[in-house]
Amino acid sequence: MSDRTLVRGGLVITAAEEMQADVLIEDGKIAALAAPGSSCARGWTAEHTIDATGKYVIPGGVDAHTHFELPFGGTASSDTFETGTRAAAWGGTTTVVDFAVQPRGGALRQGLDAWHAKAEGKCAVDYGFHMIVSDVHEGTLKEMDLLVEEGVTSFKLFMAYPGVFYSDDGQILRAMQRASGNGGLIMMHAENGIAIDVLIEQALAAGRTDPLHHGEVRKALLEAEATHRAIQLARVAGSPLYVVHVSAREAVAELVSARDQGLPVFGETCPQYLFLSTDNLAEPDFEGAKYVCSTPLRPREHQAALWRALRTDDLQVVSTDHCPFCFSGQKELGRGDFSKIPNGLPGVENRMDLLHQAVVDGHISRRRWIEIACAAPARMFGLAPHKGTIAPGADADIVVYDPHAQQTLSAETHHMNVDYSAYEGKRITGQVETVLSRGETVIDRRRFTGRAGHGRHVPRSTCQYLA
Amino acid sequence: MSDRTLVRGGLVITAAEEMQADVLIEDGKIAALAAPGSSCARGWTAEHTIDATGKYVIPGGVDAHTHFELPFGGTASSDTFETGTRAAAWGGTTTVVDFAVQPRGGALRQGLDAWHAKAEGKCAVDYGFHMIVSDVHEGTLKEMDLLVEEGVTSFKLFMAYPGVFYSDDGQILRAMQRASGNGGLIMMHAENGIAIDVLIEQALAAGRTDPLHHGEVRKALLEAEATHRAIQLARVAGSPLYVVHVSAREAVAELVSARDQGLPVFGETCPQYLFLSTDNLAEPDFEGAKYVCSTPLRPREHQAALWRALRTDDLQVVSTDHCPFCFSGQKELGRGDFSKIPNGLPGVENRMDLLHQAVVDGHISRRRWIEIACAAPARMFGLAPHKGTIAPGADADIVVYDPHAQQTLSAETHHMNVDYSAYEGKRITGQVETVLSRGETVIDRRRFTGRAGHGRHVPRSTCQYLA
Amino acid sequence: MSDRTLVRGGLVITAAEEMQADVLIEDGKIAALAAPGSSCARGWTAEHTIDATGKYVIPGGVDAHTHFELPFGGTASSDTFETGTRAAAWGGTTTVVDFAVQPRGGALRQGLDAWHAKAEGKCAVDYGFHMIVSDVHEGTLKEMDLLVEEGVTSFKLFMAYPGVFYSDDGQILRAMQRASGNGGLIMMHAENGIAIDVLIEQALAAGRTDPLHHGEVRKALLEAEATHRAIQLARVAGSPLYVVHVSAREAVAELVSARDQGLPVFGETCPQYLFLSTDNLAEPDFEGAKYVCSTPLRPREHQAALWRALRTDDLQVVSTDHCPFCFSGQKELGRGDFSKIPNGLPGVENRMDLLHQAVVDGHISRRRWIEIACAAPARMFGLAPHKGTIAPGADADIVVYDPHAQQTLSAETHHMNVDYSAYEGKRITGQVETVLSRGETVIDRRRFTGRAGHGRHVPRSTCQYLA
Amino acid sequence: MSDRTLVRGGLVITAAEEMQADVLIEDGKIAALAAPGSSCARGWTAEHTIDATGKYVIPGGVDAHTHFELPFGGTASSDTFETGTRAAAWGGTTTVVDFAVQPRGGALRQGLDAWHAKAEGKCAVDYGFHMIVSDVHEGTLKEMDLLVEEGVTSFKLFMAYPGVFYSDDGQILRAMQRASGNGGLIMMHAENGIAIDVLIEQALAAGRTDPLHHGEVRKALLEAEATHRAIQLARVAGSPLYVVHVSAREAVAELVSARDQGLPVFGETCPQYLFLSTDNLAEPDFEGAKYVCSTPLRPREHQAALWRALRTDDLQVVSTDHCPFCFSGQKELGRGDFSKIPNGLPGVENRMDLLHQAVVDGHISRRRWIEIACAAPARMFGLAPHKGTIAPGADADIVVYDPHAQQTLSAETHHMNVDYSAYEGKRITGQVETVLSRGETVIDRRRFTGRAGHGRHVPRSTCQYLA
Repeated sequence: MSDRTLVRGGLVITAAEEMQADVLIEDGKIAALAAPGSSCARGWTAEHTIDATGKYVIPGGVDAHTHFELPFGGTASSDTFETGTRAAAWGGTTTVVDFAVQPRGGALRQGLDAWHAKAEGKCAVDYGFHMIVSDVHEGTLKEMDLLVEEGVTSFKLFMAYPGVFYSDDGQILRAMQRASGNGGLIMMHAENGIAIDVLIEQALAAGRTDPLHHGEVRKALLEAEATHRAIQLARVAGSPLYVVHVSAREAVAELVSARDQGLPVFGETCPQYLFLSTDNLAEPDFEGAKYVCSTPLRPREHQAALWRALRTDDLQVVSTDHCPFCFSGQKELGRGDFSKIPNGLPGVENRMDLLHQAVVDGHISRRRWIEIACAAPARMFGLAPHKGTIAPGADADIVVYDPHAQQTLSAETHHMNVDYSAYEGKRITGQVETVLSRGETVIDRRRFTGRAGHGRHVPRSTCQYLA
Repeated sequence: MSDRTLVRGGLVITAAEEMQADVLIEDGKIAALAAPGSSCARGWTAEHTIDATGKYVIPGGVDAHTHFELPFGGTASSDTFETGTRAAAWGGTTTVVDFAVQPRGGALRQGLDAWHAKAEGKCAVDYGFHMIVSDVHEGTLKEMDLLVEEGVTSFKLFMAYPGVFYSDDGQILRAMQRASGNGGLIMMHAENGIAIDVLIEQALAAGRTDPLHHGEVRKALLEAEATHRAIQLARVAGSPLYVVHVSAREAVAELVSARDQGLPVFGETCPQYLFLSTDNLAEPDFEGAKYVCSTPLRPREHQAALWRALRTDDLQVVSTDHCPFCFSGQKELGRGDFSKIPNGLPGVENRMDLLHQAVVDGHISRRRWIEIACAAPARMFGLAPHKGTIAPGADADIVVYDPHAQQTLSAETHHMNVDYSAYEGKRITGQVETVLSRGETVIDRRRFTGRAGHGRHVPRSTCQYLA
Repeated sequence: MSDRTLVRGGLVITAAEEMQADVLIEDGKIAALAAPGSSCARGWTAEHTIDATGKYVIPGGVDAHTHFELPFGGTASSDTFETGTRAAAWGGTTTVVDFAVQPRGGALRQGLDAWHAKAEGKCAVDYGFHMIVSDVHEGTLKEMDLLVEEGVTSFKLFMAYPGVFYSDDGQILRAMQRASGNGGLIMMHAENGIAIDVLIEQALAAGRTDPLHHGEVRKALLEAEATHRAIQLARVAGSPLYVVHVSAREAVAELVSARDQGLPVFGETCPQYLFLSTDNLAEPDFEGAKYVCSTPLRPREHQAALWRALRTDDLQVVSTDHCPFCFSGQKELGRGDFSKIPNGLPGVENRMDLLHQAVVDGHISRRRWIEIACAAPARMFGLAPHKGTIAPGADADIVVYDPHAQQTLSAETHHMNVDYSAYEGKRITGQVETVLSRGETVIDRRRFTGRAGHGRHVPRSTCQYLA
Repeated sequence: MSDRTLVRGGLVITAAEEMQADVLIEDGKIAALAAPGSSCARGWTAEHTIDATGKYVIPGGVDAHTHFELPFGGTASSDTFETGTRAAAWGGTTTVVDFAVQPRGGALRQGLDAWHAKAEGKCAVDYGFHMIVSDVHEGTLKEMDLLVEEGVTSFKLFMAYPGVFYSDDGQILRAMQRASGNGGLIMMHAENGIAIDVLIEQALAAGRTDPLHHGEVRKALLEAEATHRAIQLARVAGSPLYVVHVSAREAVAELVSARDQGLPVFGETCPQYLFLSTDNLAEPDFEGAKYVCSTPLRPREHQAALWRALRTDDLQVVSTDHCPFCFSGQKELGRGDFSKIPNGLPGVENRMDLLHQAVVDGHISRRRWIEIACAAPARMFGLAPHKGTIAPGADADIVVYDPHAQQTLSAETHHMNVDYSAYEGKRITGQVETVLSRGETVIDRRRFTGRAGHGRHVPRSTCQYLA
């Protein structure tokens, strides 16, 4: 007899439906959903029953953009796969897709192996990998085919960071052409890094060294420019395109225009662009450094365009770009030179809550919450039908979410391995109560019951938006 | 003990998911879905089991735009509620929303009562009503509130047909303002009828009397103009807008532009605009009259814009605007004067098949097929969560669809009460096999087992796209 | 021997050139321009020499939109052709095009004759007529051809003012078709008057009766809507279109879009939209009534779009829509009911100065000043090459303009027959010094030396933008 | 007593006016224009009188884009300054602006000196220089200021030709910033050369080596992309931008969009894009090589967008990009490898005629002909008021043009030093009859009467479109 868990009495919310339904789990998978009053449901028994009355029963979150243990600027992001995935679980996220990095001069395989080694046996929830291609050449192009075969089906390129991750337009075109053949999805960091580096140099030379100048040199127009360029290159290559961490309304406009033409162009934004702004970058006493990430935070007025695009499906996904650096000792590396501040923010634990707050605030509907946070990233990165929804046959990655709980975000209470919260003091309505990962309870009424090593690597299909 | 039916072994397709699942029906509702191999599913028993192996199990279609027994131009559309809903069932459609007509000078109530009388006891499947408002004045505005209360939550206005259904911009604005207050949805026939009537008069005076001139005088620019005007009036009124039977790419462009701005503007197209063209209007021997409808068929080049808009969700719904007139005796009224040809085409039986053909042809995905034909019209017109999906608690309106069957559309084999098919001879891959309406089998392996009177009036909530 | 005048030493500015040049006038026409130092120029003699050293020598202004002695709302605009054209001369305008009005139920001819009678023998400067078509029918359409023959080549229609000047879309389409055949130019008052009348009624019923509500009910979206509609109707008719008194940025956007497509669509704005705003409409003690005109003044933010469109040639002309009503006794008719305030503002005397101020303020270049105020209206309405420029053969309508003079606009010093100035107290750099009309000095160093009856009716060619 | 020439009886056409006028020339400058019948004109005498009855009297053409003696791909363009400017004179062009080239690794000055040496004493008509900046660095930026001072006020950068003329986005940004300070105008060759080089390599590797593949790899989307990028970089730098040889409708769309926003963005196209197409590139027997230039010829459908943009002033200038290579011995270098075909076409002699043909064909008006060919390039590159118009004080660069003459373009009769004509056999209505350069007759009724060395270097002001 199989191991059975029953989630009773909740409102099941998926990207498409809201229904009062009992959920039956067998062997780590969702076996059935039934109408609560039905004779069928009444007849169900299970070893373990969770009472979800008055709660939401939602799919576990899928965070398609994290950077655990990422070497960057002489330091490394402060969450390991162990601490990071545990924080994810606390925040109701049951799948992360992290980025393996090709070492410059080395093979994709080499980078992927290194990242597998970092993650294996450490994770509290399931994980997959994208591949950062630092160096496009004939060899890397061939490796891309192999990686797609084994479930690493997306490849990130950078139009920013010359000398580090930067690819020129010829390399980008070649990689897109390859992806167009093997089904891979090109993910793009779209900022004109060559132009930005000129502005950085000029700012520093002029003594404009504070964190807020990070936001000023990385201009919205230069994000929009690169977004447009990436789209045109993808058109030439005949490939789809996924633009990561869209922050500027001008960049959104480029996506809107492309999608109106029916092009397979997709976009992601992140909670920091929806809830924070250049006001934060301007916080005194170098506190602005906490909010340094690229693309940068934008003036508050950009937020409306992002929310609208999330509603109109011109942006499909909200990921975190979780890449934490402690203020003390890490962010501080950039005192006196904003260009030396490690880029990145913590957030993997906060995403589901912040987006629920957006439901409360009226920005998006409940179903859209689940779509942008669970279903769309799963489908975008080839994780459906296992992840991102609650349906017979899917993995039993389930969150019981209390929509009425009140909480205050804070570094004092969060579980991410970083000494500050980007949302310190923000009050949120709604909280994760219980989390199942493939049927196992990893958070039980706000107690961590998971373990390092429960989480498995999940090979991914190719993008499921293109069928 | 309840009455139970079990649909085994099919691929359940909804707007959001595709899953191998067994579906358990109790008392006319969907009680549960279970993974086929699960112990839960294996334990299910039922009075009646349908083997759907190798088939699709889809929600019954929702056709949100039919005209049964509609008086028009001195005659009436040839399908009664009995023949029309029976044909709908044959075609896999289990809910229709027809249009009650306010008599000019009379009350909305009067029209609604008349339509209830036509439908009651006659229908093979469930039905609802929109209200055509022929005469907007203080009285009608007040009645709108009452109708919303009793489940008639959408109101159709015409910018075409001066002297018949036409409302001027002031009447439209008032009705929109009212809808903005009571939650009603304004449906718009968007063509500049005042300008078109000038062109009709000029065409007839010049001896251009053939059916193809119907298409020429009803210019795409005048559909686009009216669409733009309706959108602006809705913005002034602060109301949502649903544009019916969009056919011109220029009109699509207006919807795209409005939706890019985040406005609550929706659009429907119909199979005739997707599969037919002005080539049909130009068929010799007055055969073009079979294809006379308004908005008119457009040159073939417009189709790409419609398909694209269906993919990008700039059009949300495909309805039929089913309004059949026999060629013999009805369409013939317009020999020598295209303006006397009764406007309308049959199609309620063909919609689900034609759109499945679009899946086969690569225009849309399977899930999008279900969305535009079932889920979206249900949600648009307040029929969710009962109609339009397969989920615990929903009405058991289910179609077992054979995706591999081959059929040829023809008046000889169709069940609509009209002497021609607009798609005569068209070969289709895919066919409805079995249809359940609230758990009752109305089509059983291509035998009609339903009955007049099974279908009930369904009061509707307000538009569920606006939450 | 002919009568010769010589204008020496000025900077001649036309729409295309700026040049130091002496201007020789013979028999009321410009005989020659010569470089000041040339032996040719040195040899010139004349009966009368004007020293323009340090001054601009510019073409006399062409105001293509005035309403002298216009009956409106039970009163009439307060400038007669005598007072109005004298004020025009004071302001450096040497040609006006006024609007003859077809009496409802009467013939175009009847209206035109009436306006000829008002003007003949009264005018200080030259004048032409547009024809307001109040009632489009077969007879009026035929008359349009005749009027074009005799030099009344433009026809104004109204989408506003139902029951007064309003034409429906069918009438508009017919008039456009006719114009497309006879070379006439359709001028459009583009506001959706049918919808606006609903909003007026609602505002008054709700007690919102102050002048500022005039601006609120005549919504920018309803100007934009009508502009778009007029453009589409013109496309259907294959005719050009000239939109009068454009005030809303949304309406500008419609013109921009049409012109990007290469359509023969033109637009005019007026000084009041460039320099005044809804702030004026909100002035207390009913003073807002002074600024009531239609289209209405808009919020200040709209001005940037108008200036930009003037720079990019998306608006071609600045006219005044001069239509003065005294505050006392006329504007006051609307106390307690803004809809009874006579619509219109004085301005014929101020236009050239206000636009020179725009040069000083950096909105436009000097040549563009002359283009929008002189050359473009002349060419638009068939007055070139006689009016609007300084070139051999042209009428000697010349203004010596002092770019350094300082003046303050005020009702106390202006010459328009109206008891207030819309620009009371506004300081202007620049002033008209001397004005010639066909070689005769009508303003001589700020003394009026003209006479009623000097001004002649000027038959006009068809629009010269369409060659 | 000065030297006087009189041009009698012609129709003087400038960008703004058409007038019957006699033109009096004194000392190489235009002294006066007079109405033919005026007593003033009747009194004129001159040493030399040209009868222009029935002819046009137009400003000499300004060709702002020529490449005489340009080293390219191991050879050099075949026209010297002597042969090239003589051919220009034959074609009615009296000013050329050629491109001095900074040697890679050397100073701007070095290149400019070299080009002065090539031109001095050789030219039949006046000439100026733009500067091609091959290598943007701190030194070049400083030199830019000096060159602006001495009348070389425009700087060409390349987004194409990596390793030759290519500047990266950082270099472009720096140069634009500098120009924004010193008044210089950045001219951009806008093609994504990095991406194009990938496509070239792939085409050659695949054996697609014929001239037509030159057109296929240099994709319209990659011209549009670079155009968009250049515009965004100019916005960041706060500088104006002039895009050379625009050929793709998608690139035109980028200019239209920028100009609608009021940005100081300008564009030039060339006769080859207006009259030739990829059909020519596909001519057999390697004849397609005659038409190899970059940006490349486009499919015929692009021409309509170029003509429209010329009419709507979204393109301001038509230059030739004259850069001739003989078919024999030069173009032939690329047999078997299209990438080795020297890029360029002859045309300096044909431009005025081809554009007059466009007047005859109805694409543009006569005044617009003069504007795009004479007045606008003069104003764009700081040559007004001396060049580009006929007005008192301007240089007496005048063409008497016979609008009725018939000619056939051919290498047999042309005067350019190249063995083929890109327009061989094309019949043209209209022909240059007589040409004056600063009052001297260089073409006298189709006889060359000029001389090498008459033409002088003309220092230029900064762009006169920005005042």
